[in-house]
Amino acid sequence: MIFTAHINVMPLKELLDPQGKAVNNSLHSLGIQAIQNVRIGKHITLQIEADSKEDALHFADTACHKMLHNPVMETFSIVIE
Amino acid sequence: MIFTAHINVMPLKELLDPQGKAVNNSLHSLGIQAIQNVRIGKHITLQIEADSKEDALHFADTACHKMLHNPVMETFSIVIE
Repeated sequence: MIFTAHINVMPLKELLDPQGKAVNNSLHSLGIQAIQNVRIGKHITLQIEADSKEDALHFADTACHKMLHNPVMETFSIVIE
Repeated sequence: MIFTAHINVMPLKELLDPQGKAVNNSLHSLGIQAIQNVRIGKHITLQIEADSKEDALHFADTACHKMLHNPVMETFSIVIE
């Protein structure tokens, strides 16, 4: 079966996110004052051929640990569909 | 009230995604052959001060149109919590 994984890789809460901060300030300059605390990470979608949802989750988790996220700076979450 | 918006900005399906393609090939090199069709976009979280969920969605949508997505190359989706 083919499963689709949706992976969010976000900068750790404890760390500054300069990209998010820049967007935050620019949105304020554009007049959207109601928005704050912008944080920007990666959204990754991929397709996984696996026998079960658990297997698919395992593949996605392995991919995150081996390549997709940097544990020093980022955290990730996976949703399998 | 403070709402949290989760925004995914992804490259259009019709377009090549070189970053996703590179990750796809690298995952194969690492021995994870089960994964295919990797696409990489942005995941943006932000907090919005608004009177209602509809207002919050409106602010997030305005932010997407004014700054966060490039309509030529990207599509976006918003979830308000």
